[in-house]
Amino acid sequence: MNLILLFDDDFITATRVRLSGRRLEHVTNVHRAAVGDALVVGATNGHIGIGTIAHLDREAIEMDVVLDRDPPPALPLTLILALPRPKVLNRVIASAASLGIKRIVLINAWRVEKSYWKSPRLSPENLRHQSILGLEQARDTVLPSIETRRFFRAFVEDELPFLTRGTRALVAHPHAPEACPRDVREPVTLVIGPEGGFIDAEIASLQAAGCTPVTIGERILRVETVMSYLAARLF
Amino acid sequence: MNLILLFDDDFITATRVRLSGRRLEHVTNVHRAAVGDALVVGATNGHIGIGTIAHLDREAIEMDVVLDRDPPPALPLTLILALPRPKVLNRVIASAASLGIKRIVLINAWRVEKSYWKSPRLSPENLRHQSILGLEQARDTVLPSIETRRFFRAFVEDELPFLTRGTRALVAHPHAPEACPRDVREPVTLVIGPEGGFIDAEIASLQAAGCTPVTIGERILRVETVMSYLAARLF
Repeated sequence: MNLILLFDDDFITATRVRLSGRRLEHVTNVHRAAVGDALVVGATNGHIGIGTIAHLDREAIEMDVVLDRDPPPALPLTLILALPRPKVLNRVIASAASLGIKRIVLINAWRVEKSYWKSPRLSPENLRHQSILGLEQARDTVLPSIETRRFFRAFVEDELPFLTRGTRALVAHPHAPEACPRDVREPVTLVIGPEGGFIDAEIASLQAAGCTPVTIGERILRVETVMSYLAARLF
Repeated sequence: MNLILLFDDDFITATRVRLSGRRLEHVTNVHRAAVGDALVVGATNGHIGIGTIAHLDREAIEMDVVLDRDPPPALPLTLILALPRPKVLNRVIASAASLGIKRIVLINAWRVEKSYWKSPRLSPENLRHQSILGLEQARDTVLPSIETRRFFRAFVEDELPFLTRGTRALVAHPHAPEACPRDVREPVTLVIGPEGGFIDAEIASLQAAGCTPVTIGERILRVETVMSYLAARLF
């Protein structure tokens, strides 16, 4: 937690917050902070600044906050991701949020197991919580929007062409003839497939919707690895 | 498992292997392969090729293998990494191996908790196993060397200056004034700190040993995220 994310409910006056639960625990046990200490804080979807601890006991922490800086710039990347295994979903979302990705669409694909869609980790509460963990890690405040689309074809045919407008649309594909571009100077829509990859018919649909298959070489990387790899390579 | 890694012990003739255990299970349950199917295989530290299933039962699988291709090129990167929490160590090692990193040195630092050094995950067997998982993911065959150094100062003062010879030596540091370079055309030695970062005295020691602190911007990323991010950015 490199930044303590603050919510409207935390404010007891315009400049004072009162926190309990997970954040209190972290400040006490990890930061080992005391009254007078200054911590990096940020208002959800707002400014970043400093919170000075005014009061601290076992029940709650109170901080006087000055919020005067912009959060780091967002990554101009929309991520369309075949729904990962529940086991990796949490860290993929946290990692995407930490990288500054602000729009994520989780989609179905042939190699996405049906059972993944029933995971409790897909609840809006959990997706939001994982996003918060990513923002706290990266010192950002702006929550990503995370949507889910159960029907690959409907999404790719009806929605994707609109979503990619004004962006460079790419699908990561190990067998693509074209190399993934570097230092792209425009917004990107990036599609990443499931473990085992998209099937040929899916790649064809994505191409028909305007996405160019691109490769990063012979290595096939896990979704969490390839996501940050491509974030660095593209921008 | 995008490649089945083969070991000397697997060969029952010069061109036939017999596998059981984890690899048999994977071929049966995930690949759902049958006699006659061809799978991507590779000899540890050697060539890649195709294994054609000659025999398959509940005890073992036998494949006739043709190994005729080089594995993908290694990443010209030596990774010096403050020992991560045991919980993340496994996937950091697997991810590093999948990226093609061939030398990893796990070091101590002020913010590495002492207890991490007692984790059974640090056993050579486990580190090797995680490396194998990374190679199987990325279709590589060349195992990384993984060393551990319990004493930061001895390592940085006595060993690091030799280790970085002929390479560009960098330490990832959020507060560095210099931006991390892109498309470096020479081998790199990259030092990555613990959660919470290196302390100032450690950064000073690393600088004295020839490492330049470089930043990737305001965002503070987790070790597994920053590792693949920097691998993409540097090369």
